[in-house]
Amino acid sequence: MSERIKKRVAILGSTGSIGTQTLDVINNSYCELEVELLTAYANSKLLIEQARKYKPNHVVIVKEDLYQEVRDALSDLPIKVYAGIRSVEQIVEMDSIDVVLTAMVGYAGLAPTISAIKAGKNIALANKETMVVAGELITELALEKGISIYPVDSEHSAIFQSIVGEFHNPIEKIYLTASGGPFRGKSKEFMELVTPAQALKHPNWTMGAKITIDSATLMNKGLEAIEAKWLFDLKPEQIDIIVHPQSIIHSLVQFEDGSMKAQMGLPDMRLPIQFALTYPNRVKTSFPRFDFTAYPNLSFEQADRSIFRSIDLAYAAMRKGGNMPCILNAANEVAVESFLKEKIGFLQMADMIEKVMNLVPFISKPDLDAYHRTDCEARSVAMELVSKRK
Amino acid sequence: MSERIKKRVAILGSTGSIGTQTLDVINNSYCELEVELLTAYANSKLLIEQARKYKPNHVVIVKEDLYQEVRDALSDLPIKVYAGIRSVEQIVEMDSIDVVLTAMVGYAGLAPTISAIKAGKNIALANKETMVVAGELITELALEKGISIYPVDSEHSAIFQSIVGEFHNPIEKIYLTASGGPFRGKSKEFMELVTPAQALKHPNWTMGAKITIDSATLMNKGLEAIEAKWLFDLKPEQIDIIVHPQSIIHSLVQFEDGSMKAQMGLPDMRLPIQFALTYPNRVKTSFPRFDFTAYPNLSFEQADRSIFRSIDLAYAAMRKGGNMPCILNAANEVAVESFLKEKIGFLQMADMIEKVMNLVPFISKPDLDAYHRTDCEARSVAMELVSKRK
Repeated sequence: MSERIKKRVAILGSTGSIGTQTLDVINNSYCELEVELLTAYANSKLLIEQARKYKPNHVVIVKEDLYQEVRDALSDLPIKVYAGIRSVEQIVEMDSIDVVLTAMVGYAGLAPTISAIKAGKNIALANKETMVVAGELITELALEKGISIYPVDSEHSAIFQSIVGEFHNPIEKIYLTASGGPFRGKSKEFMELVTPAQALKHPNWTMGAKITIDSATLMNKGLEAIEAKWLFDLKPEQIDIIVHPQSIIHSLVQFEDGSMKAQMGLPDMRLPIQFALTYPNRVKTSFPRFDFTAYPNLSFEQADRSIFRSIDLAYAAMRKGGNMPCILNAANEVAVESFLKEKIGFLQMADMIEKVMNLVPFISKPDLDAYHRTDCEARSVAMELVSKRK
Repeated sequence: MSERIKKRVAILGSTGSIGTQTLDVINNSYCELEVELLTAYANSKLLIEQARKYKPNHVVIVKEDLYQEVRDALSDLPIKVYAGIRSVEQIVEMDSIDVVLTAMVGYAGLAPTISAIKAGKNIALANKETMVVAGELITELALEKGISIYPVDSEHSAIFQSIVGEFHNPIEKIYLTASGGPFRGKSKEFMELVTPAQALKHPNWTMGAKITIDSATLMNKGLEAIEAKWLFDLKPEQIDIIVHPQSIIHSLVQFEDGSMKAQMGLPDMRLPIQFALTYPNRVKTSFPRFDFTAYPNLSFEQADRSIFRSIDLAYAAMRKGGNMPCILNAANEVAVESFLKEKIGFLQMADMIEKVMNLVPFISKPDLDAYHRTDCEARSVAMELVSKRK
């Protein structure tokens, strides 16, 4: 262990759920991890607090009108303060950064992730939308630059942990486990009247609003399937989804001999975050341990795809390829926002996404510009559909 | 994969349950594995049949009065035939053998395993008694000779598969899963009247008689705990046993970060046998695959140690160390045989083992001779106890 090298971490999106848990992990890492850069969108108060505690060399506040506030609050410390999304894209390229943890929400994570990969940084990927939207482009770029993308999503971390030491052995199949969300087993009638407050109550995981709604619709699992396709070089038919309400088995791999490996434990995002940052090493923690007596039964069931239509929509987008997952993602981001603002109902999210997938022109080999155009167009089509409903 | 080297396998105990399944695996191995040596104790008919099919260069029939029969039956083939246990010990040393799979039953596996290790062969260990009796001596010898011991027991294979690629990360704890055997949840009153026929019906695994009885008493799990201690360099308190009636999760590892990894699948010994022989590679199989819809619930419970006393006896022997596990093992072999011959009842097996553990002199640092003496003495003490009962 003596040859372990201290890693300097950039956290994109440090004030969100993954960001704050990442700081927890760094705090617990016996100085194996250090903070080099923190960025936040608009939560200047928390960003200031984090910067004062963890003393990074750089911070970026994306929302530019908050720059002065952040700069003034940190003026007594040797911390450089920047503003704007372009600053994030530039600063992630700095030599002093070893690994970039991307925890920004949604499509916004794409550009900084590309900048970081181009600068040869390893990525701890918490922003699944990056892979959903532009998995082909990202994986090609990663290969070209010789960098590694370590998954932070608990499911993909479980797969990654399960194939460590076996990268030479082909994967036959993976099972992504899903908690089933707060509406597992509910009827269509019940689902029609679901409120944002109900949908925001996840049974097992404490997460941000966007991903919590995605978990309630199971779109999160569909996006994860697309993410898994790119991270582990799989075909859609090699990726299965199984509902596992206790969220103890975080996902499974089946190898070609038929043997399966699973990674398990209490639902705690700090574990996959830490593994992404300290791989191939594990760092001792005092996090609570799993206890079989508290979980005498682990159960498994199929998702009801007639209610949770997002899964089939995501698989259709994955099979179609090109810019279709980008369309799916953009439509979903608008759908979730519209649902949270009570502009559309719970079940209408899938209806709307399906419509947008049919309306936005398909591009089979998109470049980065085409992704940007697709994202814009899909969002405006989606928003038009929402406004028409009103 | 092109650099894969064909491995030549010696199977000690080829006519038993593990032996025949090993030949199945070799048959399925796309010529990655070839048979160099087959040995059997007394099943000359099957040994002849296997030799004619797999064409090893050498066979040994241990029971010497069967030598003529085996030699005559194979006289038209270029197969060298030998007799006696000493022949096994010598032939495993041959240069043409790459890996020795030890599937002999009980204490008899110890001497040939030592010969093979001394000759620098890697071991696929199916004879857990070898590690139970002389784990300290075996692991020291393996280290000295620079050979690897690959576990074949499904539980230890599960642990091994789970730590592949993570040998540098300390194990915090392991859970050995136990089916619970045919008498899980039964009362003491019921157990007093159990017959050998009832005890030989294992709910999930098809195995030899000795290990099936050991599974019914849960002594098998106790022996496995001792085996795990030596294979994975663990303290007794790092080894836990959990009853899992479906036998799907074959065992689990917990690392120091709190993350757990499990190896799973349908109960099929061919999988761990194959992994022990082809490691670090997996070979594609057409064995049936696990299906969650057939196992919607995986359950876990504590063993009732007041009825299944073997576990505590094994842990006591493990903690005591020295020749105590050897005493435990010898007493258990006599107990199982006596139970199968209906000389003692089911619950009396543990009583007898406990008595033998108290009667045979303790040796804290036994050498191989001391193990032999201990084994002899423990057996004669045990047999005396059995005969006194009559």
